[in-house]
Amino acid sequence: MSLRELAERARARLPEVAKGDRNGALLAMARLLEARWEEVREANEQDLEAAQKAGLPKAKLDRLRLDERTRKDLVAGLKEIAALPDPLFRLEGLAKRPNGLRVGRMRVPLGLIGFIYESRPGATVEAVSVALKAGNAMLLRGGKEAFQSNQALVALWKEALKEAGLPEEAVSLAPTTDREAVLEMCRLELLDLLIPRGGEELIRLVQKEARVPVLAHAKGVNHLYVDERADLMMALRLALNGKTQRPAVCNALEAVLVHEKVAEAFLPLLEEAMRAKGVELRACPRALPLLKEAVPAKEEEWDREYLDLVLRVKVVEGLEEALQHIARYGSRHTEAICTEDPRTAWRFLEEVDASLVLWNASTRFNDGFQLGLGAEIGISTSKLHAYGPMGVLELTTLKWVALGEGQERT
Amino acid sequence: MSLRELAERARARLPEVAKGDRNGALLAMARLLEARWEEVREANEQDLEAAQKAGLPKAKLDRLRLDERTRKDLVAGLKEIAALPDPLFRLEGLAKRPNGLRVGRMRVPLGLIGFIYESRPGATVEAVSVALKAGNAMLLRGGKEAFQSNQALVALWKEALKEAGLPEEAVSLAPTTDREAVLEMCRLELLDLLIPRGGEELIRLVQKEARVPVLAHAKGVNHLYVDERADLMMALRLALNGKTQRPAVCNALEAVLVHEKVAEAFLPLLEEAMRAKGVELRACPRALPLLKEAVPAKEEEWDREYLDLVLRVKVVEGLEEALQHIARYGSRHTEAICTEDPRTAWRFLEEVDASLVLWNASTRFNDGFQLGLGAEIGISTSKLHAYGPMGVLELTTLKWVALGEGQERT
Repeated sequence: MSLRELAERARARLPEVAKGDRNGALLAMARLLEARWEEVREANEQDLEAAQKAGLPKAKLDRLRLDERTRKDLVAGLKEIAALPDPLFRLEGLAKRPNGLRVGRMRVPLGLIGFIYESRPGATVEAVSVALKAGNAMLLRGGKEAFQSNQALVALWKEALKEAGLPEEAVSLAPTTDREAVLEMCRLELLDLLIPRGGEELIRLVQKEARVPVLAHAKGVNHLYVDERADLMMALRLALNGKTQRPAVCNALEAVLVHEKVAEAFLPLLEEAMRAKGVELRACPRALPLLKEAVPAKEEEWDREYLDLVLRVKVVEGLEEALQHIARYGSRHTEAICTEDPRTAWRFLEEVDASLVLWNASTRFNDGFQLGLGAEIGISTSKLHAYGPMGVLELTTLKWVALGEGQERT
Repeated sequence: MSLRELAERARARLPEVAKGDRNGALLAMARLLEARWEEVREANEQDLEAAQKAGLPKAKLDRLRLDERTRKDLVAGLKEIAALPDPLFRLEGLAKRPNGLRVGRMRVPLGLIGFIYESRPGATVEAVSVALKAGNAMLLRGGKEAFQSNQALVALWKEALKEAGLPEEAVSLAPTTDREAVLEMCRLELLDLLIPRGGEELIRLVQKEARVPVLAHAKGVNHLYVDERADLMMALRLALNGKTQRPAVCNALEAVLVHEKVAEAFLPLLEEAMRAKGVELRACPRALPLLKEAVPAKEEEWDREYLDLVLRVKVVEGLEEALQHIARYGSRHTEAICTEDPRTAWRFLEEVDASLVLWNASTRFNDGFQLGLGAEIGISTSKLHAYGPMGVLELTTLKWVALGEGQERT
């Protein structure tokens, strides 16, 4: 079936998804993952074999693998989301107007969401569960390497939906994984939202081609600014946590900006601590003489997301230069300041344009669970609708509702 | 100066706009409209003369005209917006996480907004005032017919900004009004948001070409569904108010759907009342025999916005068919039901996908002031970020903020 047909069939069933037993479907999926894991594992084996033959690097094979631990995490996640309060059809802020008309906003699903992802097949369970909780249908286009795994998981979703009395058309996988499928999604005006999650090239392609609303989940070029009034020991811990606690994720730290007045004291400490963790430093001309083994950072490198044990270091004249650097090279994902001066901190918090701005805390906190939202479908770096982690509420919208007794406009 | 240069200059000054005396600029503009109205009027005269020579119909000339009443309305609007509470930099929902990290959301401007409009030159004052109150800069591309008027008004805006100590780069008018300027705006990745307001063709062009987020303000193909349990006298009043109180606006009524059980009683009443107001009826095959002078509605007509004294009438089997008709032909703008049955009403309220859904009230209430938002920049029919009237809050976004004491992720 073509993408368009899949989308049309999903659209026709949207009210049933919103009104049906969505939690029942989530719990049925949890049971099916337990009972029929063998099917998923076998499909995953096929993907892994093909990927090995194609010579995929070990890191990518690891991301592709669905093991016992993944199963447990997925099942636990489904149960957790099922237990969350239902967001739909609540009326917010119902107020009475002078003419007696009662007006408020009702929370409703976005509708049909297109999800283009390149990542781990586990996302096929996680992303759908968040979207479904919010009453949406979902059209998935996963990565080539995970195609068999994704098919097996979507087959289970369809069974789970059926078990709960929901239309199985609510979750579908695009029949192909080529670039053409991405372009087709971009032009499918039947989508209420398109979420691309993946590499820079994919995001840029979708932003250029899409004729439907897009919430991009782009790279995280995240900075820590170490102010002249920073607690340097705290700054050191935050830099280490940001860079090394899990380097391959989008909220990891990519660059440290250091106030010139503390550069001499801070940079040798930073180098020693980072070296002990195997982190390579790339530095600006002012930082280089203060470091023993750093290499010069190239100009074209400053907006790069390494996702690896590499850290850029730059000495700045002060807050002003730090703000300018972040505005120019940052990716509006996560930005942090370390300072004991509240005035400097608040200026940073107010002026930096990023989905999360932190004062004296690690960039690694930009995450749905850490911020108290619960499960998320990714972290939006788009400013509209949802800026930051997208949880269940971010996959709904508010429409206006008016309850009258015959009111006319005069 | 090119659009790109104007946008770059505006972007560079965004923090100053957000932090500056925005209310001061609004009040200065109000004073300048009083003191220097002559300049605006002269520019408007040039536009009117050219339009007359070009043979524009009278309705369009009326829309183009800036008279004393417009001036008064614009001045009053500016003062009203200046008096609204400031939306920026408020921290919402600051909560303490188990690790002591305080997280919340801070309201900040969207940034640089592109506004493409074809309408009355008064929009040059109204739209900018809402955007500026919310701390945004604005790049305008107005219609050809109003170019002199728009230039005069933007010149006053620049003076008002200067008087209040704000950068005059915050408001600019595109140097040309051709289609090329629209396409250039669509591709200007420096924009945080692009708002097209105008005819269907313009909206579709922008949605197709834009590489930045778009909130479309599309046509209103609005229905009133008269249920079998409707108070028919109320239904009649709502239909008349929706269609005739101001036919040329987007929240006017375009079609009435009537339950078959009340069609025989209701349609003759409707025809008589509408005829008295000079409204032409176009009807479905089932409605035709119940009407004296109606003409058949053509199939391709059902999704049309007349903006005129023309009304479509259709007999439906019941709620189900009404919902399906609205889903197919509606434009997600404004939809109303007239019924005394709360069960039917709530199903309509929940299931109809439109920016405002009304029960026993006129579609004409889809308006920022009527819903209690105050001034608006238009009515969004996009589901993301803002669905319905876009006031000051809808032109801001919420970013996450975290206040820590050295917290690291474990």
